Amino acid sequence: MKPSHIEHIGIAVENLDEAIKFWENVLGLKCYNIEEVADQKVRTAFIQLGEVKIELLEPTSTDSPIAGFLEKRGSGIHHLALAVDNADQALKEVEEKGLRLIDKQSRKGAENLNIGFVHPKSALGILMEFCSK
Amino acid sequence: MKPSHIEHIGIAVENLDEAIKFWENVLGLKCYNIEEVADQKVRTAFIQLGEVKIELLEPTSTDSPIAGFLEKRGSGIHHLALAVDNADQALKEVEEKGLRLIDKQSRKGAENLNIGFVHPKSALGILMEFCSK
Repeated sequence: MKPSHIEHIGIAVENLDEAIKFWENVLGLKCYNIEEVADQKVRTAFIQLGEVKIELLEPTSTDSPIAGFLEKRGSGIHHLALAVDNADQALKEVEEKGLRLIDKQSRKGAENLNIGFVHPKSALGILMEFCSK
Repeated sequence: MKPSHIEHIGIAVENLDEAIKFWENVLGLKCYNIEEVADQKVRTAFIQLGEVKIELLEPTSTDSPIAGFLEKRGSGIHHLALAVDNADQALKEVEEKGLRLIDKQSRKGAENLNIGFVHPKSALGILMEFCSK
């Protein structure tokens, strides 16, 4: 397993519309998709920046993981998602190398990708996601 | 001003050698450069991941901004650097749009880039850097 590139950077925000305005009006980029991910209780907006997507995440419920993050740390970078050929294989490989996983198996994320998270305690304090198509 | 891509992601780490091992041995990537930036009191290691660089940052002094970050938040993503044509022009433009700057003018950063920071309070809680060659 060797990630090919950064698939996206997840950013927790209090207000999706305000956050989109920042990326569009201040930085001149364009939001191309808004999607609700019921499983993770978030509404997400996507902005393409070179080969990387910026994924803005607004909680849709107070028990969303993003709501917890916002309460603890406030708005900011939430996770880093690496593109791999096979998310399940990547999770298995890093677990064999001693990393602690959040997801033992991949699940469906936004944009119909297969996604799975590694625990930040095992990844230099970064909430790290593997994604594959 | 429209950023072309993410130039790098800065990650604050306690121990540069251990952090390099994580990216190399666990993720199969390669550190291609280690550099000390005296101005910011850090030792940095660079790893290319697609078009984005991962910049690992270890403080060389207890009064380094990275030491302060580590003390407050622990290891993790520290800043997001966007590639622009002209960092000074980008700083000027976003200041005119009402953003608070850390650097009114660009200065020399790692890899001889011109860099300047926007205050996280003005950028969705993200410590945002503009870089140009």
